[in-house]
Amino acid sequence: MSLKQFETMNKGESLSLDEVLANLKTDDAGLIATIAQQHDSGEVLMLAYMNEKSIRETLETGQVCYWSRSRQTYWRKGESSGHRQSLVSMSFDCDGDCILLQVDQKGPACHTNRRDCFFFRVNGDQVVIHTAPE
Amino acid sequence: MSLKQFETMNKGESLSLDEVLANLKTDDAGLIATIAQQHDSGEVLMLAYMNEKSIRETLETGQVCYWSRSRQTYWRKGESSGHRQSLVSMSFDCDGDCILLQVDQKGPACHTNRRDCFFFRVNGDQVVIHTAPE
Repeated sequence: MSLKQFETMNKGESLSLDEVLANLKTDDAGLIATIAQQHDSGEVLMLAYMNEKSIRETLETGQVCYWSRSRQTYWRKGESSGHRQSLVSMSFDCDGDCILLQVDQKGPACHTNRRDCFFFRVNGDQVVIHTAPE
Repeated sequence: MSLKQFETMNKGESLSLDEVLANLKTDDAGLIATIAQQHDSGEVLMLAYMNEKSIRETLETGQVCYWSRSRQTYWRKGESSGHRQSLVSMSFDCDGDCILLQVDQKGPACHTNRRDCFFFRVNGDQVVIHTAPE
């Protein structure tokens, strides 16, 4: 499936959420790559995966719920650490294989206690650790 | 493979690029999810996929090259449209299964001629087209 069939719709037109969810281009495990961005600063915090049930739960509760591929279970972000992600907005991309979440991240998003997960930065032929845990 | 073995390194320490590339957690096709973000505005433009060869080409040329899963070939962003992405920085995430590119995007990033690909925005039980092509 794909959302490409809807790409010529005009700005301001709408579809039902159910129709969009039914047309997402998930992988074989029913998952879709999901980017979390801090809504006010623009920081890209992390990439994780959602399935339809975690998308619906996130929209219903306003607290972000992923599917953990390593643990094979729902992952309510911050449930154990307290580092919750509150949902500000959810958008799907042109072909329906990616979600962008605008969130309000409390504390570090990364399991290493860094604010974001992208701390291996390329510098020439080296990769430098460019942030420390908080 | 994963980059988790390196997560306790201190800020400012470095690894060789070759070692990091050898430890990325790619999918079965050798691909890794790659987020492109406009370096100055913070806009998340798109999500695409890279393999090791496209990562190396991007670093060497300074022009972003993805692997197109639909066309099964290298995708030098903007080669036909002129909407090039120039590389500003490249970072890998904590477990080595995602890349964040800071780029300078010329014109629209999306194939629909929108600036970014995330134009299906959830609004209650509806999804609204929230930008128009440029």
